[in-house]
Order: sequence, then C-alpha cells, then structure tokens
Amino acid sequence: MTQAQTDLAALHDRAQAEQELFDLLRIPSVSADPAHAPDMARAAEFLRAKLQGLGFTARVDPTAGHPLVYAERLAAPGQPTVLIYGHYDVQPEAPLEEWETPPFEPTVRDGRIYARGATDDKGQAYAHVRGAELLLRAGELPVNVKFLLEGEEEVGSPNLEAYLQEHASELKADVIVISDGSRFAPDVPTVTYGLRGLSYVEIHVQGASRDLHSGSYGGAAPNPINALAEIIAGLKDDQGRVTIPGFYDGVEELTQEEREMWARLPHSDEEFAASIGVPALPGEAGYATLERLWARPTLDVNGIWGGYQGEGSKTVIAAKAGAKVSMRLVPGQDPERITRLVQDYVPTLAPEGTKVEVRGLHGGQPVKVDLDNPYVQAADRALTRVYGKPAAFARTGGSIPIVAAFRTLLGAPVLLVDFGLNEDAPHSPNESFAVEDYHNGILTSAYLLQELAK
Amino acid sequence: MTQAQTDLAALHDRAQAEQELFDLLRIPSVSADPAHAPDMARAAEFLRAKLQGLGFTARVDPTAGHPLVYAERLAAPGQPTVLIYGHYDVQPEAPLEEWETPPFEPTVRDGRIYARGATDDKGQAYAHVRGAELLLRAGELPVNVKFLLEGEEEVGSPNLEAYLQEHASELKADVIVISDGSRFAPDVPTVTYGLRGLSYVEIHVQGASRDLHSGSYGGAAPNPINALAEIIAGLKDDQGRVTIPGFYDGVEELTQEEREMWARLPHSDEEFAASIGVPALPGEAGYATLERLWARPTLDVNGIWGGYQGEGSKTVIAAKAGAKVSMRLVPGQDPERITRLVQDYVPTLAPEGTKVEVRGLHGGQPVKVDLDNPYVQAADRALTRVYGKPAAFARTGGSIPIVAAFRTLLGAPVLLVDFGLNEDAPHSPNESFAVEDYHNGILTSAYLLQELAK
Repeated sequence: MTQAQTDLAALHDRAQAEQELFDLLRIPSVSADPAHAPDMARAAEFLRAKLQGLGFTARVDPTAGHPLVYAERLAAPGQPTVLIYGHYDVQPEAPLEEWETPPFEPTVRDGRIYARGATDDKGQAYAHVRGAELLLRAGELPVNVKFLLEGEEEVGSPNLEAYLQEHASELKADVIVISDGSRFAPDVPTVTYGLRGLSYVEIHVQGASRDLHSGSYGGAAPNPINALAEIIAGLKDDQGRVTIPGFYDGVEELTQEEREMWARLPHSDEEFAASIGVPALPGEAGYATLERLWARPTLDVNGIWGGYQGEGSKTVIAAKAGAKVSMRLVPGQDPERITRLVQDYVPTLAPEGTKVEVRGLHGGQPVKVDLDNPYVQAADRALTRVYGKPAAFARTGGSIPIVAAFRTLLGAPVLLVDFGLNEDAPHSPNESFAVEDYHNGILTSAYLLQELAK
Repeated sequence: MTQAQTDLAALHDRAQAEQELFDLLRIPSVSADPAHAPDMARAAEFLRAKLQGLGFTARVDPTAGHPLVYAERLAAPGQPTVLIYGHYDVQPEAPLEEWETPPFEPTVRDGRIYARGATDDKGQAYAHVRGAELLLRAGELPVNVKFLLEGEEEVGSPNLEAYLQEHASELKADVIVISDGSRFAPDVPTVTYGLRGLSYVEIHVQGASRDLHSGSYGGAAPNPINALAEIIAGLKDDQGRVTIPGFYDGVEELTQEEREMWARLPHSDEEFAASIGVPALPGEAGYATLERLWARPTLDVNGIWGGYQGEGSKTVIAAKAGAKVSMRLVPGQDPERITRLVQDYVPTLAPEGTKVEVRGLHGGQPVKVDLDNPYVQAADRALTRVYGKPAAFARTGGSIPIVAAFRTLLGAPVLLVDFGLNEDAPHSPNESFAVEDYHNGILTSAYLLQELAK
C-alpha cells in the first residue's frame, strides 16, 4: 500500500457514505413515469446541495424534460480537466410484486444494498461524489473536476445532446469518466472500451375497428395478435440472425486479437447460464457467448400486449396489439438508419387484413474507445492500486447512448470504469450493489483523479 | 295478423319491459372477476324475485361458483314441458376507456340499448321472462315452463354439468330453448342448428429466472416473448391451416347441400369486412367466409402479455411471457382431445433455453341439431308470425358449451332461436341490443310457447 492510498482510505467515512447513498435511493426518481416529476426534482436538488457543500459551484439546470445537475471545481491550474458523467434517474420498478423488499427503501442483506438504482446509476455516480469528497478532506482536488448528472438516461437522454451543444465550452474537458455499467467479474477490475448502440421501436398492429367475439368472427377476421407473432417470428432466421434487409451492412467484424483476448477472460458458459437459471444460451450461430454479447447486434422483444390479460378466459379477437422491440447495435451500425430499415421492412410483413405501424422511440450510437489512449493507462493504474492487479480490457453489451455524443460534441475521449456487476440485476426486480463495490468505487474514483494529474 | 298475435301484442307493456331490463343491466355481474361475487348474487335474486312474482316457483341455487336461478310453472297437464336456458353473467367490461357510455348504465341511442350484457345474454334471456309474463297476462301458460338461468356461462359453465346431473329429473323437458346468439341478419329470422365447440388454453413460456437487462444479456439469454411469438406463428401454416398434428382428424366435412343453402343466404364479404373495418377476411384457404365461420375450426390468440407494457422504453428481457389461445371446434372434434393435442405438441416447439407449459382453461363440445325435429318447425311458425317470413336455417361460429351437456344429460333436443345480431358487439366495448329486437324477442318467446303446445 502506498502512502497516498493509506491516507485516503483512512479518511473514508464508510457509514456516512452509505447513509447518504441510502437517502438518495429513497427518492423514486423514475424518469419514464411523468407522475414522478417531483421526485426527479428532489433527487437533482439532493445532488446539487451535496456538491455545493463540498465546495463545488453547483446548479440544477432545467431541460425540456427532467433537469440535470452541473457542478464544477476548477482549482488545479495547469492540470487536466475531468468531466464525470452519471445519471440520477432509475428504471421503473415494475413488476413490484417480485421485489423482496420495497424498491425505494434501501435494505442491506448479505453485504448488498437492495434498491432500484443501487447500481444503475445512483450508487456508481455517488461513488464519484464521495471520491471527490475524500480528496477534498485530504486537501484539494489534484485535477479540475466537472460533474454532469442527468435525469433522463433511462428514457434515452432526449435532451442531453442539446444541452451538450449549448454548454460545449463550459463542459470542455480533457477526458470524460463514466461509471454506469459492470466490471467483467467480481475479481476483475475492468476498463470497458466498447458499448453497443440501440434502436428501440414499437410495433403496432391494427385488425378490426373494434374487439370482436371470437365465436362470431373467428375464421374470417384478422387477428392482430397472431399477426404480431408472425411478424416477430419473421424477424429472425433459424440461425438467430436478424432478417431485416441491410441490418448487417457495415457491421465491424471482430479482430482475431480481440477474439483471443476475450477467450482468455475468466468466463464459463455453464456458470453464465446457471446464473440466470437457463439450460442453454441461444443466439446467433458462429459466435462465442462474449462475442455475441459485446460485438454482435441483437433483436429482442422487450414487451408485448394485446387482448385479454386478466383472470379466466375471454373469447375475444382484439382490435389491436403491440410490442416494444429493441436492437442492440455494434460499431458500423447507425441507430437512425437501422430504425428506418425496420420502419420500411416490418409493415411489408403485415398479414392479410392487418395494418402495421412502427414508431421509433429512441436510439444510441455504438462506441469503441481507443485502447492506446494515455487516460486508459491512468485508469489501469488506479484500478491496480485498489484491487492489486491490472485491469482487464473488455466491452459490454449495454448502451450509454450519450457516450457517442460526448465524443462528438465535446471532442474528448471517454473512460468507462465500472464499479458494478451484472449480478447487481440492473433493470430487474431486486436490483442491488455490493457494499464493498461501492466503497471500492469511491477509492477508485479518488485514485483515478490522482493518476490523471500525473 | 292472427287474433292471438293481436291480443298478445296489445298486452305488451313496452316501457315496463325496458325499465326492468335496464334494472338488470345496471348490476355488474362479471363472472370472471371474483370481486363481483356480491353483484352475481344480486342479479340472481333479481331474476328469482321477478319469476316468483309471475307465479313461478323460483329459487336461487348455490353452486361451487356463482349461483343459478331455477323456476318452474307446471300448469299445463298433458302439454309438453319447455326448459328455457339463459345466463345472467356477463363478459368483463375491459377496455373501459373504449365505452362511449358506462357499461353498467344502460343508455338508449339510435334505437339501441348500450350496456354490457344487453344482448349477451341478459336482454335475450329476459325477453323469455317477459314472453311468459305476456302469456300469463292473457291467461295461463299453454305449456309447462322451466327457467334455468346460470351465472357462469362466460367462464365456461364449470358447475353446470354437475347441476344438470344432480337435478336431471327436476329439469326433465321435451325441448330446451336457448336464445344466446345472433340471427343471421336484421331481416332474417333464424333457427340456428349448429354451434362450434371450444378449447381454451393458456401458453406460458419461461426464460431466465429473473428479468434481465437487454444490454448485458441480449444475444445470449433466451427471450420468452420472442419464443412465444415463434410458437404462435408455428401453429398455423401459410394456408391458414392449424399445424397441430391430429387437429383435423375426424372433422365432419360440409355437405354440398349445406354449402348451397348457405350460398343462398344474404351475405356479402365486402359488407362483412366493412362492418368490422378491415380490408380483407383472411382465413383457411378453400372455404367461403360462412363456411369458415360456421363449419371450420380456428385458432385465435385472445390475449398476450410479457415484459414492459408501460410508457416509454424499458430495455428488459422478460423472465416469462404468456398467451391465451382458443380454438373453435366443429362436429367431429372433441375439446378434451384437442386440448391434449395442444398440451403434447406446443412444448415441443419451445425454442432453445425456454420452458413451455400449456394449461387447459375450459372447453365445450361442438353441436349440430337435427333439422327434421318437429320443434324446429314450431320455431319456424313462431318466427313467421313475428317477422312475416319463414326462418332461415343457419349455424353460428360461437359456442354454448353446455348445449351438448343438455342433449347428453337431459336427453332433449335443443332449439336455438336467437334475438340478437352480430353488430350488437357482444364481448366488445359498446355492446348493445336493438330495442325492437328485444320486443320482437318477447313476442317470439310467447308465440313459440303457443306453437309448442299444438
């Protein structure tokens, strides 16, 4: 342990760091549900006040949607400027009945904090706030630090690009740090150098102008649910490949080096399958599991509805049915182009007597970060100080649609240093964050700012 | 107009008949929803009290589910005994937002009574109650009359068979009369001689043991919604034929005579399609529309659910998905056998990594009534007296699962004389019943009892 490490760790108030995070987790800041707008405002103010208290210049900025928090402390002349991005909004809690403890009452069990947003992204974002606090307790921040904490990540950050454009000079930074994903494994400190993009659409199928009695009309009326099933089934072939014409155009193929590097990572298909309780890991033929998760595009239905969903049997032919469908995209694919392809193709699959409409909901660019970047080396050193071993270089299957916007609009490289784990179950009932991962995140954040100063 | 016709029509109090039906329609007797149990009891008592007031011996009999009403007036020694069956339970009102006026506040617009249950079956069943009242105002019932009004038709009459078996001698009748469907067309008095049967199942697909983030798992985790879509799409071929092995075994083919008789009925595919707002009438290849509706089996998804159905976009791979699927059956098909075929076959379609379970919900036997039956001729005469033209002989695509039970357990032929119309929209929002159809039903019921006495 170096002297710097000892000093910072000794200054770290674990109990206080936990209590503050719990207070933040108690605010049900669900961005997808307009009814939670007051909670969004409360969460933003919570963060602003905290950063102000630490000595940052902090404010809550309104947007056309939910507000975001901006804070800066520029007290290291001649040193680099680091922009830390996170989000305080969370996924909807549904299905509520599957939570073992209430989603907005953080509860520690077996060393894990259970709450909606525990890992995604309140816990990881707040680790950076406490990391800065640690350095300030020891003296001053060794680099210039800017925080940008938004409230619309879980609904596609519809207002962030405009904000970045409007505040480009204020947000100017040498490097952008984001912790909003998962390390590769519990014992593997990870720098993530690739994210998948996203195209998210809704498919709406219309049959008759009203619900029909299946006795009187069954056999002659179009059934929009059967039609929707046919359409969805037609979007993949028996090799698990997406059938939308042009979907794979431009897809960047994996290099042999990446395939070999990933093959050396500690991964077991059997354990992966067991961790989610399935007997097999279906997917596109010809690619290993990590390759499919990180470097191949997908098509998943995220929700479907139509007709009678209640108890018992209702003999109805519904007038309409719908589904939410998302495609994870990889470098070489453009979300807008993919959404257009889907909007052009899917209506051509409409079975006789039905009308099909595809609405684009949101998208995000896929990203790959340059591994030769010097800031990547600083992250590697910071992680080595916390974990006692060098970082692995992995990609992730998730999307942070605004990472591409950061690169384009602010012109700075993006460092993805994640504190969470897949088993934290972000987006699921019983989302959690290991208490130790939270504290390691706080230390990693502090060390990273030190390493970036060198 | 005969003397008998004039007399009865003059005795008919239209306003009172309407007000009484409205009172019954105001009771939300939704059998599928356990929360409505007190309303079921209220509706049953309403009918019992009315029949008691007319001079019937009437009672409410409990069952393992909702109660049924039994009433009898056996004041015509030497004359036939007629059992009139109807049901006082109604379909769920969902989706409530599509009703123009509240489903349980009957409202007359353009000569139609709008309310859940207006035509199915409160309006049609109550027409028989008022028909008996008309005859009693004129003197005495010309035949012995028994009423059996149940509260579980819309949930598959799970307790009716046991009731029929237990009360077989009490319910003994020469003919059973049911009005729970639709006439062929507004100007066509109809005797319905065939009903389709039903097999209703739920398909449940399980993927992972919990909901998953589609970023972290998309490409390797089984998706139960995609799987369900594949399964459903696989249940029909591109000719609209059901692919379940053995499904068509034993299906009674249409005779040339029936095809010709139906081809002469006033039917237009264009008008039929326009009436439900669709550009085409898809279905099994090789059969005309009426043939598909009345004499061919179908497979329709009646409801589907899975994943996120709320506002906005949630990037989740659901742990499970499900669908309600019903098959209309025709003479030669047995519901229990068909349900078994589905339960055997559908799980074999489970895509890799998923588990599929099929639960049988309920079934009903298909029925064909003998056209040579003398009671059919009596119905034809009664209809001719009301409408001034002979009846058409049609089938219907709907199911009254207990019709087969009546034939088997009580050993009597079943007369299906319907007062409603398809455009009444049973099972849909804005269900209605034409005011004139209600009054014609009352007269038809009274004349039919007279004709059956001859």
